Amino acid sequence: MASKHWKELAAEKRARLAASIPKEWILTNLPSKETLNVIDFPEKSGLLSEKEIEITNTEVMVLLEKLAKGVWSSVDVTTAFAKRAIIAHQLVNCLTEVFIERALKRAAELDDISKLQERSLVPCMGLESTMGYVSWINQYAAKNSVLADILESCGAVFYVKTNVPQTLMWVETFNHIFGRTSNPYNRSHTSGGSSGGEGALIALKGSPLGLGSDIGGSIRVPAAFNGIYGLRPSYGRLPYAGCVNSLEGQDSLLSVMGPLSNSLGAVKHLIQSVASKRPWLKDPLAVMKPWDEDQYRLVDHGEGKRLCFAILWHDEFIVPHPPIVRALEETKKALLAAGHQVIDWKPLKHVEIYLTIMGIWGAGAQEDYRVTTSPSGEPIVHTMGLTAELTADNPDLIVTDAPVVRPFYDDISAYELFQIQKQRRDLREEYLDYWNSSVALTDTGRPIDAIISPCAPSTAPPHGMNKTAGYTMIWNGLNYTALVLPTGLFVDPALDPKKPPHTFFTDFDKDNYNMYDPEGFKGTPICVQVVGRTQEEEAVIGMGEIVDAALKARTSH
Amino acid sequence: MASKHWKELAAEKRARLAASIPKEWILTNLPSKETLNVIDFPEKSGLLSEKEIEITNTEVMVLLEKLAKGVWSSVDVTTAFAKRAIIAHQLVNCLTEVFIERALKRAAELDDISKLQERSLVPCMGLESTMGYVSWINQYAAKNSVLADILESCGAVFYVKTNVPQTLMWVETFNHIFGRTSNPYNRSHTSGGSSGGEGALIALKGSPLGLGSDIGGSIRVPAAFNGIYGLRPSYGRLPYAGCVNSLEGQDSLLSVMGPLSNSLGAVKHLIQSVASKRPWLKDPLAVMKPWDEDQYRLVDHGEGKRLCFAILWHDEFIVPHPPIVRALEETKKALLAAGHQVIDWKPLKHVEIYLTIMGIWGAGAQEDYRVTTSPSGEPIVHTMGLTAELTADNPDLIVTDAPVVRPFYDDISAYELFQIQKQRRDLREEYLDYWNSSVALTDTGRPIDAIISPCAPSTAPPHGMNKTAGYTMIWNGLNYTALVLPTGLFVDPALDPKKPPHTFFTDFDKDNYNMYDPEGFKGTPICVQVVGRTQEEEAVIGMGEIVDAALKARTSH
Repeated sequence: MASKHWKELAAEKRARLAASIPKEWILTNLPSKETLNVIDFPEKSGLLSEKEIEITNTEVMVLLEKLAKGVWSSVDVTTAFAKRAIIAHQLVNCLTEVFIERALKRAAELDDISKLQERSLVPCMGLESTMGYVSWINQYAAKNSVLADILESCGAVFYVKTNVPQTLMWVETFNHIFGRTSNPYNRSHTSGGSSGGEGALIALKGSPLGLGSDIGGSIRVPAAFNGIYGLRPSYGRLPYAGCVNSLEGQDSLLSVMGPLSNSLGAVKHLIQSVASKRPWLKDPLAVMKPWDEDQYRLVDHGEGKRLCFAILWHDEFIVPHPPIVRALEETKKALLAAGHQVIDWKPLKHVEIYLTIMGIWGAGAQEDYRVTTSPSGEPIVHTMGLTAELTADNPDLIVTDAPVVRPFYDDISAYELFQIQKQRRDLREEYLDYWNSSVALTDTGRPIDAIISPCAPSTAPPHGMNKTAGYTMIWNGLNYTALVLPTGLFVDPALDPKKPPHTFFTDFDKDNYNMYDPEGFKGTPICVQVVGRTQEEEAVIGMGEIVDAALKARTSH
Repeated sequence: MASKHWKELAAEKRARLAASIPKEWILTNLPSKETLNVIDFPEKSGLLSEKEIEITNTEVMVLLEKLAKGVWSSVDVTTAFAKRAIIAHQLVNCLTEVFIERALKRAAELDDISKLQERSLVPCMGLESTMGYVSWINQYAAKNSVLADILESCGAVFYVKTNVPQTLMWVETFNHIFGRTSNPYNRSHTSGGSSGGEGALIALKGSPLGLGSDIGGSIRVPAAFNGIYGLRPSYGRLPYAGCVNSLEGQDSLLSVMGPLSNSLGAVKHLIQSVASKRPWLKDPLAVMKPWDEDQYRLVDHGEGKRLCFAILWHDEFIVPHPPIVRALEETKKALLAAGHQVIDWKPLKHVEIYLTIMGIWGAGAQEDYRVTTSPSGEPIVHTMGLTAELTADNPDLIVTDAPVVRPFYDDISAYELFQIQKQRRDLREEYLDYWNSSVALTDTGRPIDAIISPCAPSTAPPHGMNKTAGYTMIWNGLNYTALVLPTGLFVDPALDPKKPPHTFFTDFDKDNYNMYDPEGFKGTPICVQVVGRTQEEEAVIGMGEIVDAALKARTSH
């Protein structure tokens, strides 16, 4: 047992975080609490120079080119993003570790190296990884993860780490150490989770590129809620060795590392750069797959000339809110206009797949969380509603308006777990057959090339109201590659009025319907997912570029 | 519950097997029980024509060429191997399903197809897959496995299935339906397991190429004990979907499919042919890896010009018998003579890795076996000693001279399983770092290229005496590619005298030492394993050819 009360430990950690923020970057002109949309504030804050604004607004691939040509130094770029990250933090509470001095030292070293080949900026590992657990405060990583090593070898500079929910296993961001991260488009709404700090930071351009892990949507939900790109690669495409997580040793439904960014080019660049360093020689679980340029050029998808996309309008579990449906319709129109085929995708046993996923996550979760929280004595977070702070003080408190986020399963035996995993294996086989059988529905001579799916049944909901993750976790369960991309659309009460009630699939569906309030969601960004087969990262990026271009062509005329 | 007693069901199945054997191929001139080495009998049996002897003795790649050129028809070849398989069965009891008529019909169809591209002959799936369980008699496969489909599309003709131990989870071959498979080099010794029927059949040239599954050595132990080639590929390199197994749903330490053959060329051809059919489009667990010709040409291993092999002399658990050590020494000499570097390999925590493997296998095994055997009421096989038949009648019988083969673990919780799996994950990372660190020991500028390892601490032991599988299961635990190859050497009392006792690592070590009797093991074949990294099937085959050639050069001068 820790000798200190968990609240004291958490307060000390917060104080250390506060002390790590350069004093001269602390703002006195912050918008009031009532100002919900703060996405434009960083540039108006007065802290950033013109050049710093230019740097942080530059598309990542252009930025890398300017770095390579020496137009901007690594110190320039690191300083600009670090400053903007600190502004973002003061707006939405997204950072957990700040180590700018170390980052600038590293950046200066990089500036001294003449033959630098590649550079990226990735807030990432090292230091403390609390994962929102008070128990893990003061546990310093003895070495870099394999991915951090590889990225540093590519010229990456790490300068901050970002906030996540306690346990990582939730789609909002709140914990007892750092509190809650808010959505920069509406601070009364969630930034999603688990990589909610990262998503909010990148939306505020406090970072050009970041990393998250994704076992059920932890990259994609924050990407979707903050209107940025996020890729969930297949198991082992990026190395995971040396990264921490909950439920470690659960080897069936693996968490994966993946990028979040404002730039799809940066997503591609990250996958390509890491693959070029042959991570399979350093991580036993990394797949041996170099970057496949043919796959990226869509050689197996008719060179991308005429693709067939299938749209998943709903999963027979929850019908998405009107703005999501509008975004899918706009995507369909854009793709048809670009000469592609678009068909409807009938979900195959999604709810059955959800149940196997929940069964696997739940199999040993209770014991895992208990073991992790018990050294500090902090309670396990049971809600992420606005009452979360209250329940932290009084874990037995029942607050009826705050949905319980962690419905506990009883821990089960290994044999029982195997039966669930076997069922999931069979469902995966069935889904693959189903995908292959779609060849009968297309005019391309191939099965569908990709699925266009909602990212969630809503855009970023109010704090504490994000209760499900079906639209992301389905692809984890199937281990399909899934890319979130912003449609350039935002919730607009005029375009997205509330519809009359439909026949609800489930109570979750009804709750989601009831939650929708066009004025409340106004201005939150809308994203879609592009989903390809297992290990089709290159093809999904290639098809993502096609969808992205089609959507941009639509908005430009 | 089945309405019949399990013994009745088993007897009926045996009767069906007997009835499926063409009457005219039943021999009356079989060698007496006292004749232990029967490896040469098939050709002397009088049943095979000169041409059939020629066909069945032809190296597989040459055979495929002659098939392609129409020198021999598919019917010719199928008939010859089917006949020889039936002879083998009468010698060592290796078959479980015989479907020659169906095979000849298929062969005739293939002969009618003019543009046949590839052909192989693979005894395999379809029909009943009892896996030695009485409960599974009369369960007919509704469809082919993905691998069977792929092989049929390559022109394979399936004609027999072969014997395995009840549950598959043992390294000898005995069950209550088909009884015991013997070793053709010494019928009082085991053919190994689980693919013991396959190993014995191929050694007797009743098949040119076969398939087994391997979760701890089930391909490699029979390959080693019968003096043939056997490859354990990495997880998912060959498709597994649609194949049966024990402990299904255990997703951490996966069983894999792989080839057994008299020909290393055939092993290569099988991997290459299956990869060319893109199994990842049909099996969600198959890795997306086409045949990599660069890897086969050892581009990452200095083009194979000067390799560094590391010899694992023992695993600090059991010291191998003198003939195994002699084979390692001869391999070392041969490789040095061929211009390669050879160093010693100190095992890193092999025993710790064994414990994690046993923990994962044991996690739900008791319940799994109980659930599978209970419909028929047959007892779970607890020994494969010569008393196995007695204990089948009387499961509570304690026979002290028969080692217990299935030390039961208590079933554990999912959380406990995760802790073991986490430990294994860490050990895998440590072993990979250890492998990489060997760059300091080589003169090639690279870490070691491959490990040369024993396949088992002995050659084929007497029935019931094969108690451990450390030398194979270590590579399953690490997911390394492992190829068994015959050294061309056999146990020779003059060359392999018993040594004075050493300081024993364990009781298993002592038992293994005591078991060795040069006269008793005389004439059993000696194999070694060539072990490469994960997903290095092509490189391991390429390096295997180098080791094979070096050993052949040695014996030829």
